[in-house]
Amino acid sequence: MTSVISTDPATGLARPLGFDETDAAGLADAVAAAERAGERLVSLGRFGRAALLETIADALEARRDEIVGAADSETALGPVRLNGELTRTAYQLRFFAEVLREGSYLEAVIDHAGDTPMGPRPDLRRMLVPIGPVAVYAASNFPLAFSVPGGDTAAALAAGCGVVVKAHPAHPATSALVGSTIADATEPLVGRAVSVVFGYEAGIGLVEAPAIRAASFTGSPGGGRALAELAAARPEPIPFYGELGSINPVLVSPAAAAARASSLAAGLAGSIALGGGQFCTKPGLAFVPAGPDGDELVAELAAQLTSVVPKPALTTGMAAAYASGLESLGAVSGARVLSGRTDAPAPGTTAPSLVEFEGDDLPPRLAEECFGPVAVVARYRDDEHAARLVGSVPGSLTASLFLEPGDSGVPAARAAISARVGRILYDQYPTGVAVAWAQNHGGPWPSTDSVHTSVGATSIRRYLRPVAWQNAPASELPAELRDGPVDLPRRVDGVLVLPGS
Amino acid sequence: MTSVISTDPATGLARPLGFDETDAAGLADAVAAAERAGERLVSLGRFGRAALLETIADALEARRDEIVGAADSETALGPVRLNGELTRTAYQLRFFAEVLREGSYLEAVIDHAGDTPMGPRPDLRRMLVPIGPVAVYAASNFPLAFSVPGGDTAAALAAGCGVVVKAHPAHPATSALVGSTIADATEPLVGRAVSVVFGYEAGIGLVEAPAIRAASFTGSPGGGRALAELAAARPEPIPFYGELGSINPVLVSPAAAAARASSLAAGLAGSIALGGGQFCTKPGLAFVPAGPDGDELVAELAAQLTSVVPKPALTTGMAAAYASGLESLGAVSGARVLSGRTDAPAPGTTAPSLVEFEGDDLPPRLAEECFGPVAVVARYRDDEHAARLVGSVPGSLTASLFLEPGDSGVPAARAAISARVGRILYDQYPTGVAVAWAQNHGGPWPSTDSVHTSVGATSIRRYLRPVAWQNAPASELPAELRDGPVDLPRRVDGVLVLPGS
Repeated sequence: MTSVISTDPATGLARPLGFDETDAAGLADAVAAAERAGERLVSLGRFGRAALLETIADALEARRDEIVGAADSETALGPVRLNGELTRTAYQLRFFAEVLREGSYLEAVIDHAGDTPMGPRPDLRRMLVPIGPVAVYAASNFPLAFSVPGGDTAAALAAGCGVVVKAHPAHPATSALVGSTIADATEPLVGRAVSVVFGYEAGIGLVEAPAIRAASFTGSPGGGRALAELAAARPEPIPFYGELGSINPVLVSPAAAAARASSLAAGLAGSIALGGGQFCTKPGLAFVPAGPDGDELVAELAAQLTSVVPKPALTTGMAAAYASGLESLGAVSGARVLSGRTDAPAPGTTAPSLVEFEGDDLPPRLAEECFGPVAVVARYRDDEHAARLVGSVPGSLTASLFLEPGDSGVPAARAAISARVGRILYDQYPTGVAVAWAQNHGGPWPSTDSVHTSVGATSIRRYLRPVAWQNAPASELPAELRDGPVDLPRRVDGVLVLPGS
Repeated sequence: MTSVISTDPATGLARPLGFDETDAAGLADAVAAAERAGERLVSLGRFGRAALLETIADALEARRDEIVGAADSETALGPVRLNGELTRTAYQLRFFAEVLREGSYLEAVIDHAGDTPMGPRPDLRRMLVPIGPVAVYAASNFPLAFSVPGGDTAAALAAGCGVVVKAHPAHPATSALVGSTIADATEPLVGRAVSVVFGYEAGIGLVEAPAIRAASFTGSPGGGRALAELAAARPEPIPFYGELGSINPVLVSPAAAAARASSLAAGLAGSIALGGGQFCTKPGLAFVPAGPDGDELVAELAAQLTSVVPKPALTTGMAAAYASGLESLGAVSGARVLSGRTDAPAPGTTAPSLVEFEGDDLPPRLAEECFGPVAVVARYRDDEHAARLVGSVPGSLTASLFLEPGDSGVPAARAAISARVGRILYDQYPTGVAVAWAQNHGGPWPSTDSVHTSVGATSIRRYLRPVAWQNAPASELPAELRDGPVDLPRRVDGVLVLPGS
């Protein structure tokens, strides 16, 4: 058996946590618990599950200091950021409680029997039901908000699905602590609704477990693609929702560069270096006009980044990957590393950096995510050139457009960049993802599977599947599909009807 | 070059259509046309696209006799069924026009900037946008409703996506005729919004074409899985929506068998033999109680099926597959073929048949679809045994429950059967799929990818992806996301608002 080890990236100290990686029996037990809990989550109903989510939020906040301390000792992200992340995590659970109570997410529809041009139509009623036990693969960079108690877990519980989380090896102690916090909170109501498993083997076994009905993953393209292939190769394939990184392009118009090079440089530097550049929404590729205005922006951005104190990466492996990533970016023809630092950063830390590119076509390597505080600035001559460069950008979570009021510059580049992302920002930086009804955290591959978001109200839909009842007696129908007044919006005979009307 | 051949299954006569299978240049041309048309479909707006769908419906009906004649000479399905299918196809297009005008499908959401417990929230607005050019793989068994002018094409056009349809080789002349009918109708408005390609190679190239953003397939598990793997192996994987067959279990309670064995036998026989058993919703596996009531039902069902005149299968290959399928069903231990026919059916035709099974556990072969007019009847002793048998049923489009009023029999079997299907019918037969807001035509694998339907209002969602606009000037927003009164339901600051209010 392999012991689970917790490592402090700030000190490099490693300590065994006193338990082993999850074996096959432990995994089977976790999956069975998720199956059993699913039935009880459904029995609770929407309002019962809403209360359960709030109970979990309360339980996490009640152990705030302990959880933040554990996470800081495994991630070195610092108490300010981690307190904020815990607040976000609790807010997310409470937001889903609001979504459940509102009820639209069920998409309840009633078509009474009637005649149509294609003949008589039977009584048909449709809504979404839980898909079944869900596997969640936790992210390295958000030990709370995208890990054991994170958005995927919250959405799956809201949907009525039991969950098994594969803990990220970068923060096992936090995962265990948060897992037991949630278990304590949910046990009396629904049994073990969330289990945590540890280790590579358990991660493989989890996506292959026959009872698992959907899998969600936040992490690297390599790991995500491998799991996606396992999900697709099952005797019964299941939906795989991957968020596999993002380059998050930024487009600065000539007018914006002329008007405010300095403030743009400051804002971009802050967004690139935030959290050690370890965000899926880090702006990794900026298109900046050639010429003196752009030169000023790039020079200032390089200076700003150079002045940032190196921070510990989440793991020593990530620090090493960052160093070799920088090297490979700098080796691309037409690219050069702009960095004032002459001293090598301390082991395990990453120093912010900037890579500038000039050329007709963007080499693919420069459009690949390099995890850490680095961005590539590609210089463009005119709109046509900018659009051509943008054409090499893969699907991304976000695109940030910096324009002046009424600015009609670079229209082709704007259209091209907007077509390949899930969120388009105007004069704002992409780091920071609000939990909201209108949020979309997704985009064309590799950001996600294109048609779903992993943040916001509709992220619940990933764990639901539609069912239609035909000619069903009222006693066989879910309460939300019976005739008479109900407590949620629904569509009746083609007309959307609000509750109480 | 391979010439495209049309074969009449009623006579076996084959005739070349005078054109070749689509080559690489022809495929590239079709994909490029779909890309260009997509831009113009978007420019039309919801109301313009609604009118376009109605124009296509009108054009198909204007050539009704010609189209039905072409389809009958390639499918032998007969003019009554094919006229009905054309009516359904036109209705489907007009139904999507209604869905477009209503506007909910866009899922428009506005969150104005404000404060939250996790800090200030920017202005965020979200709705669904077209995913891009769509590949549609036509079905053999519906030359219209699930082929070139079928539900997938209608939904993709409604979404604002250009389409390339891979014609099914069982009805190429119909595909070409309908394709040119649609092209004539759409050309003046949006260019070639729908192209038709022919041949195996074009089918492979289509799912691999970089510009294609989603693929839909209705057909066999083998073909579907192969295409799904190609979709997943692309440098940028795309969503693949497969409907890969369904066994459509039927559960008859002891009380129902006692009360109306004879009428159930007649109803089931009609549903099994309808359209030569060539429906994805054909009831292929019925669970019937042991004992005299069930015996009577089974005997009468066998007699009814035996009395049906053999019909031409869609292709001679399908007739041969049916014959070998029957043989393999009959060879399963515990199964026996109940069939009064002593004469072999004419070449290319299929005679309805019934296979009865008695045993503790259902052999997997008996839960696999056999395309054609055959069903398996599995006899159960009690609820526990029925639930155990049902446990071997794969994901299905439908389950049909036959119960008496207030019938509390076989609760475990009912629960088990309902958990694995996308539509649950009470006292009705599964063939016949109404086009409606509340329809769901899907289910756990292999019926579909679980979370989407291929029939009904929400089938449009397969070809849409969410986009969020953050801090966008009004001029940059789609009309549906601007402040002020709009013509569609949307959610504003968490509250669902109907148009005009």
